[in-house]
Amino acid sequence: MRRAAPKAILFDTFGTVVDWRGSLIAELSDHGARHGITADWAGLVDAWRAAYAPSMNRVRRGELPWTLLDDLHRASLDALCGRFGLDALDDATRHWMTMGWHRLHPWPDSVPGLRRLHAVATLGPLSNGNVSLLVDLARFGGLPWDMVFGSDLFGHYKPDPETYLGACRLLGLPPGEVMMAAAHNGDLRAARALGLQTGFILRPTEYGPAQTTDLAPDQDWDVIVNSIEELAGALGA
Amino acid sequence: MRRAAPKAILFDTFGTVVDWRGSLIAELSDHGARHGITADWAGLVDAWRAAYAPSMNRVRRGELPWTLLDDLHRASLDALCGRFGLDALDDATRHWMTMGWHRLHPWPDSVPGLRRLHAVATLGPLSNGNVSLLVDLARFGGLPWDMVFGSDLFGHYKPDPETYLGACRLLGLPPGEVMMAAAHNGDLRAARALGLQTGFILRPTEYGPAQTTDLAPDQDWDVIVNSIEELAGALGA
Repeated sequence: MRRAAPKAILFDTFGTVVDWRGSLIAELSDHGARHGITADWAGLVDAWRAAYAPSMNRVRRGELPWTLLDDLHRASLDALCGRFGLDALDDATRHWMTMGWHRLHPWPDSVPGLRRLHAVATLGPLSNGNVSLLVDLARFGGLPWDMVFGSDLFGHYKPDPETYLGACRLLGLPPGEVMMAAAHNGDLRAARALGLQTGFILRPTEYGPAQTTDLAPDQDWDVIVNSIEELAGALGA
Repeated sequence: MRRAAPKAILFDTFGTVVDWRGSLIAELSDHGARHGITADWAGLVDAWRAAYAPSMNRVRRGELPWTLLDDLHRASLDALCGRFGLDALDDATRHWMTMGWHRLHPWPDSVPGLRRLHAVATLGPLSNGNVSLLVDLARFGGLPWDMVFGSDLFGHYKPDPETYLGACRLLGLPPGEVMMAAAHNGDLRAARALGLQTGFILRPTEYGPAQTTDLAPDQDWDVIVNSIEELAGALGA
């Protein structure tokens, strides 16, 4: 640690705290088995996630007005159903599938690590999810957040600076007393550029066994760890 | 209950969940004793609180730009020090006193009642406090909030409708599925006018033994109880 321990830690959520890919593939495969629907569920989930950044970038560039992530997720799903032979899925099923992003399981180390960190710092997600999604995830997985920083608080998606600085402002803390913790180098680059501390949590299977991105830190982040439990240890919690 | 149980419950905080008066008088009296400062601490606390609504109303009427409650509290304290013979208090002491609003003890029933309610509904404060104040109160007192709705999320103070409706919007719920719980009839009147459910929690000593306001419900609120534990019971938690 090069600086004083952070007073607050902001966590990227999808991939860093929860296993979106494993959770969605399991839920959809189970749904398909129970309803006799055969599809490439893993392929659908990967394509759905691949649509994530482009959909937010349309908002970030002003091509779309502010749109909740729930609504971006639904639009991306609708655009993908044909490709995966799922055009027959009705509205209620598509809504339930979209709300699957509110039911993602934490990685095994997330809850024990966050509980330890809660004793030494204020904790919250800083995610592109909307508040209701993040609140549902926390209730579903037992995540001990003190505050939930959803993108709809700011009307901006990461890596727009309004998100990082908005969370610091609401916490009443200068950026240097706040750590951004994420499994994604890009998130940390944006946070560091604004003066936040940075914690890199390696999640080499977020995108499955063939993951090619974020397999290593690309800067000397303040803390580099393999789990949130290791982050707790590194911060003396 | 006249309607389906609420999916979320929003709690007024000062007076409803925490005992601001008892907490501040105890802390300031102790500080005075340790530092040899004699003053009418109870009188100061009551006068400080009496300045609360007028200070927010200046913001609500547009006479002041948006100002955090922390800053209104400090300005009100500065204006009162002379009257209570405390002009000699230095800046650090005044800051510490102002931050006393971040260290208020819950009423004895608050934490056990909220823990029970947490099992059946999403919980959050909807308070005129700023987010950092409410987060500190929750960490200080162990309040199990799912989300913290501070007035700085909306740039409005209650009873402005932007606060009640803003919280419902962030929760993704229609007002009819959300309950406002408060010890103050005025708060519930504003919430009911917007379609929220209402829970009145009697706090007859919030303002001390001589309290004259909010000693009884002034409408047929959906639930009327003497404690947050009773609210949990009324909602089947």
